[in-house]
Amino acid sequence: MKQQPKNIAIVGSGLVGSLLAIYLKKYGHTVTVFDRRPDIRTIVFSGRSINLAMSDRGWKALSEIGIEEEIKKIAIPLDKRAMHVVGKPVYFQKYGHDGEAIWSISRGVLNRRMIDLAEKSGVILKFEEKVWDVDLPEAKLYTGDTEKGEWQEYKFDLIFGCDGAFSRVRHKMQRRSRFDYSQDFIDVGYKELTIAANADGTHKLDANSFHIWPRGKYMFIAMPNLDGSFTCTLFMPFEGDVSFESIKTKQEAKAFFEINFPSVDHEIENLATDFFKNPTSAMVTMKCYPWTYWDKVALVGDSAHAVVPFYGQGMNAGFEDIYALNKIIKQYGDDWEAIFQTYQKERKPNADAIAELSYRNFMEMSSKTADPKFLLQKKIEKRFADKYPDKWIPLYSRVTFSDRPYAEALAMGDEQEKIMEHIMAIPDIEEKWDGAEVEAKILGML
Amino acid sequence: MKQQPKNIAIVGSGLVGSLLAIYLKKYGHTVTVFDRRPDIRTIVFSGRSINLAMSDRGWKALSEIGIEEEIKKIAIPLDKRAMHVVGKPVYFQKYGHDGEAIWSISRGVLNRRMIDLAEKSGVILKFEEKVWDVDLPEAKLYTGDTEKGEWQEYKFDLIFGCDGAFSRVRHKMQRRSRFDYSQDFIDVGYKELTIAANADGTHKLDANSFHIWPRGKYMFIAMPNLDGSFTCTLFMPFEGDVSFESIKTKQEAKAFFEINFPSVDHEIENLATDFFKNPTSAMVTMKCYPWTYWDKVALVGDSAHAVVPFYGQGMNAGFEDIYALNKIIKQYGDDWEAIFQTYQKERKPNADAIAELSYRNFMEMSSKTADPKFLLQKKIEKRFADKYPDKWIPLYSRVTFSDRPYAEALAMGDEQEKIMEHIMAIPDIEEKWDGAEVEAKILGML
Repeated sequence: MKQQPKNIAIVGSGLVGSLLAIYLKKYGHTVTVFDRRPDIRTIVFSGRSINLAMSDRGWKALSEIGIEEEIKKIAIPLDKRAMHVVGKPVYFQKYGHDGEAIWSISRGVLNRRMIDLAEKSGVILKFEEKVWDVDLPEAKLYTGDTEKGEWQEYKFDLIFGCDGAFSRVRHKMQRRSRFDYSQDFIDVGYKELTIAANADGTHKLDANSFHIWPRGKYMFIAMPNLDGSFTCTLFMPFEGDVSFESIKTKQEAKAFFEINFPSVDHEIENLATDFFKNPTSAMVTMKCYPWTYWDKVALVGDSAHAVVPFYGQGMNAGFEDIYALNKIIKQYGDDWEAIFQTYQKERKPNADAIAELSYRNFMEMSSKTADPKFLLQKKIEKRFADKYPDKWIPLYSRVTFSDRPYAEALAMGDEQEKIMEHIMAIPDIEEKWDGAEVEAKILGML
Repeated sequence: MKQQPKNIAIVGSGLVGSLLAIYLKKYGHTVTVFDRRPDIRTIVFSGRSINLAMSDRGWKALSEIGIEEEIKKIAIPLDKRAMHVVGKPVYFQKYGHDGEAIWSISRGVLNRRMIDLAEKSGVILKFEEKVWDVDLPEAKLYTGDTEKGEWQEYKFDLIFGCDGAFSRVRHKMQRRSRFDYSQDFIDVGYKELTIAANADGTHKLDANSFHIWPRGKYMFIAMPNLDGSFTCTLFMPFEGDVSFESIKTKQEAKAFFEINFPSVDHEIENLATDFFKNPTSAMVTMKCYPWTYWDKVALVGDSAHAVVPFYGQGMNAGFEDIYALNKIIKQYGDDWEAIFQTYQKERKPNADAIAELSYRNFMEMSSKTADPKFLLQKKIEKRFADKYPDKWIPLYSRVTFSDRPYAEALAMGDEQEKIMEHIMAIPDIEEKWDGAEVEAKILGML
């Protein structure tokens, strides 16, 4: 559908901002992207990023504008988890059916490519231009070097806030009455670390796996990059017995890695160096509502709904916002008030659902992975799902390998959980778990 | 205990700010109170206030510094609710035992008196001086006419944010990492209205009652003032069938009051005029943590925990913060870091509890007061409490006529609720409610 050309500002040149720019440019709008940071194509990456796991929702949004294949070139498919459990050889868990995979991409590499694509399509890019204020009813932006200095005023028809979890655009909406908002930090932080490639450029660990070293209260993960390296993330409490705070010297860091992560002991030196070089970052669940202001301003991606990264869905959810918004634009044409209303009503329950699922995964990882009852439950579920793939789609697959709404996945997951509560209450379930009784009982409850 | 004299700033000259100033002045500190608004003693009240209901916690905080009696002179004790139910004559419900009452005070009248008292005690008052920024680690305040204009810098030893639910001081803390924050608005707004005194200065309704006209989705209340008038509040949804939005003309407002509030029909003209003169205000539950920054900055009152007004505890909770803080100061002397840590850890669970209780009261009023089962439950509880006053202290009394922690009141209320669930599940409870079986069953569960 042709749209009346508008003058549109996007605040933030991250993944969501640059993808939205490409989408909107296709309608013939004038699109200007502002970012307070320098062009990511000109600088060294920050050292505070977790590798991305692109899954079906993300790919669908890229496919819609024909850039899926181009982006797949910079991604590595991971069809399984590689579990590095203490005292056991590494073992593998397939994510889904054959052909189902999540794709590891470096955030920096992807962002650079997306900005290239946005620029090529005619989007105007304004880097190192800081937005300090937004006039919501007039759709004006004010930029300048400092908050107190001289500002330049820009007038637009529409403004999109794609400026992340600590969005300036949302910040302005938040000061208005009747704006619901919450930010909840978890007590666990994360730090980016690196495992370098072998001298010949190959990977030191299996390249098509998501590597996990679960250790109860802390966890180490590694995701492959195209250059043979792995981007790793150490998740650990900020304070307490074993915590970022408690590791004070390089010697202590080395000892920590040696004891806890023997399968990466060839990397101890690098890891211990990275440990003190890279910052420790916090993780937040951010929810808000409304996401839009009249027919003037809308929030997309993390600025509207930030989640903890334990489901690997943050970027996917943001890209799905754009896919959904685009469908709604096609439906309502130039009625931006209707577009924005429909967009926020449709997306909000799904954003809440993926926030909940992501937080639950964090809780599961930190407190349940050592619980034999929980592990048994997972085993029963897996056995049943393998035998009856049409009757029992695992929650992880509903979220990762599907484009059905997140809210639906959450609801169906809760249904399955209720069934499993009954199953786990069967006396002597430890003995009977793979027997006919359990199977019949699940079938009866479905 | 003598304290080392400090240079202390308090942001906000409301009830909590002025009471805290009086407390701190007693230790010999230099205390400066900043307020962005003019001196409330020099202006007409805002027309957007609900009358206050001072109860035990509030009085205790005033008594501690010897101003309880002085404030009682401007308050009217209300020992009962006056229920104005459609189709019934007005009937009365005692709040507690003999001598137990909540006290109606006009916010404006009380605030003026408190500022007088603060001024008399030597507190420095700076009105119409707007705080725009706070340097947390340095305890500096920046004030000026406009956010972008010239600022004046003040350096203090300690800063207290008593600047309400939309606190600037907290706003600065909120931008830091790992600061948990939420603001949740309810769909119901409120509007201040007035019932004037009789020509001879007497009250038009019983002066020692809290008057309530419950109407399911909306509600009208009236609280007496010393001058014979009543400050009334209309609570009603912002949008929908019967809502602030749906009443558009004075004619419609008159019809609304005539049909719904026949017992105040002598006041229809005034009420309808007020309806369009006074603003409609929103209500928010605000939670955050931490409340303090090092040994430099602390939030007290609504800036740390704002609640919806349906338990009448907002001011009482703020005053109790000060009472608790003062006890902790006496314990820790000059160790302000220990004082602030202890203060926030002690008060946070209680603030969360009164927020929860206040919100539940809102839900109860809006959705349960028409439910016969709920009303029967309340009748059973009342019957039992009257007979066994030592065994069953009603939740309302625990909150209102006690100084035990709010968190304890909430927990005990939940215990009682569990017992009542069992009671309400008794078959034919409608017939048996005042029989021996019910009584014995409650006694057995206690």
